[in-house]
Amino acid sequence: MKIALQEAAELLRTHDNILILSHAHPDGDTLGSSYALCRALLALGKNAAVLCEDEIPCVFSFVAQGMPRPDFEPDYVVAVDIATVKLMGDCVGERFGERVDLCIDHHYTNSMYAEKVLLDDTAAAACEIMYRVIREMGVEITPIMAECLYLGVSTDTGCFRYSNVTSNTLRTAAELMDLGADCARINREVFETKSRSFAALERLALNSVETYCDGLFATVLVTQEMFRESGAGESEFDKIAAIPRQIEGVLVGAAIREQKNGTYKVSVRTNPPMNAAEICAQMNGGGHPAAAGCTLEGTIEENRQTLLRVVETALRKAGKI
Amino acid sequence: MKIALQEAAELLRTHDNILILSHAHPDGDTLGSSYALCRALLALGKNAAVLCEDEIPCVFSFVAQGMPRPDFEPDYVVAVDIATVKLMGDCVGERFGERVDLCIDHHYTNSMYAEKVLLDDTAAAACEIMYRVIREMGVEITPIMAECLYLGVSTDTGCFRYSNVTSNTLRTAAELMDLGADCARINREVFETKSRSFAALERLALNSVETYCDGLFATVLVTQEMFRESGAGESEFDKIAAIPRQIEGVLVGAAIREQKNGTYKVSVRTNPPMNAAEICAQMNGGGHPAAAGCTLEGTIEENRQTLLRVVETALRKAGKI
Repeated sequence: MKIALQEAAELLRTHDNILILSHAHPDGDTLGSSYALCRALLALGKNAAVLCEDEIPCVFSFVAQGMPRPDFEPDYVVAVDIATVKLMGDCVGERFGERVDLCIDHHYTNSMYAEKVLLDDTAAAACEIMYRVIREMGVEITPIMAECLYLGVSTDTGCFRYSNVTSNTLRTAAELMDLGADCARINREVFETKSRSFAALERLALNSVETYCDGLFATVLVTQEMFRESGAGESEFDKIAAIPRQIEGVLVGAAIREQKNGTYKVSVRTNPPMNAAEICAQMNGGGHPAAAGCTLEGTIEENRQTLLRVVETALRKAGKI
Repeated sequence: MKIALQEAAELLRTHDNILILSHAHPDGDTLGSSYALCRALLALGKNAAVLCEDEIPCVFSFVAQGMPRPDFEPDYVVAVDIATVKLMGDCVGERFGERVDLCIDHHYTNSMYAEKVLLDDTAAAACEIMYRVIREMGVEITPIMAECLYLGVSTDTGCFRYSNVTSNTLRTAAELMDLGADCARINREVFETKSRSFAALERLALNSVETYCDGLFATVLVTQEMFRESGAGESEFDKIAAIPRQIEGVLVGAAIREQKNGTYKVSVRTNPPMNAAEICAQMNGGGHPAAAGCTLEGTIEENRQTLLRVVETALRKAGKI
């Protein structure tokens, strides 16, 4: 059942032994909103903790500093920034998926699995909603709470670049800054810092960029040798996958990653009107309209030819060539 | 003489035939603030135009659409976002440098060359000040004026990433969005798209990255040959300037650009506690604490040595080495 802000705040004020769930593969928004809420509940003298299936990425770890472990049997379970039970991860989902009392979320795809749901799909980030919830709870927002909330607002908007940003997003960020969030530090650590290994991988990858179809299709290749030479981990490949599509005029970008077993994983990113999921479906893959993937088993040259043939067909079908 | 916001607005309201100067190698802030002011003056029925030594980069050209040419003898000259006469460029500086009636600027290094100066060095962008000036003038801010102003506020802050962002910057952006600026389009065009020539220049530049002082100091070099090979314009250098500081652990980043006359322009970007303006002051340059510049006349090797010596001294003074 959907509820209003005031009711959500009242429910949080009147319960205790509260377990807060973040989604698996946690990002800045689920962590920021979960730990801001946890800190607010602790400030009210309650017992509260955050549970997440996966480890917190190092760059976001400040949000959890000094926070208690979730080692109690909860009386009240709150899911934050989690659209479906599946996104909790297997263990957390199995244990708590069917007994979530309150969900605070901004995804219009929310499956309404929780008893009560505070949903605002106009919010760019769950943290934008959580800021209002904590104020409504009557808790004084400390600088570290403000930093947790700023982390979510900034990361879910690509630091205020994406089309989900509203004037309310920007005003929320302004208020969090006034409440003492060190936004400059967070921006620097999250958005303006490349690990040396990633910088090395990026350099190698950029040297591998090739364009086809009169610049409508671009590829980037990352080999196992490049991972070795740069010292980068395979998780750093995600940011490489964005590179081809950023080039002016490119409608289809493909990032090709050599895997340890010798096959190639292909991440396709498209700009409208091209559909990445449709392109990858031709190669037994799938995904979203703007971002999809597949795995190819040939040699790199065979795979390039396969990709080129599929993308050319798609571009022709779209009337682009 | 320094003046207050109200006086600046009154001076603009009471003069006519107003020529607005942008600085040479124009960026989003000097262009956005100049053309927003020009549009405000035209809205008041005045004769006004913008003059800039150099061409407007393509990605910023929307600000000048439909604006008149500066083909009249001005009665009043306004310099916007220009800290010193030298930054106007040779032709504009020679013709108007000594007769600027009003300067509106946010650089604390402003040399006070103008008759009257509206200076707010806490503003992240000249556009942040210009927004207040235009409101004070009593002009209704149209969506295109809001877009001009948003362009400056967003570009001078790396889309709200840099340490110069204040809560006022974010609130200004929120208000401009509410006034009809299509911020998502501007963000996509300015921050999420790389021209092919820039992508090529970036690749060449990344191959030139060198680190010193145990990784605390990094440089990137762009030669005239690289501009030729990539087809990139010199205005695209700005984004290259951010590269060295982004590398994990770097406190001082320097981007060295070979100029057509054989001298080298150095853009220094720092992370706290290092001060870019202090570093550049050692080499007859200036700027902001986190971003400053200077020009060096030696060979590239001599200049590298000069830079290294100055930066080493600064790092030592800061107790970093």
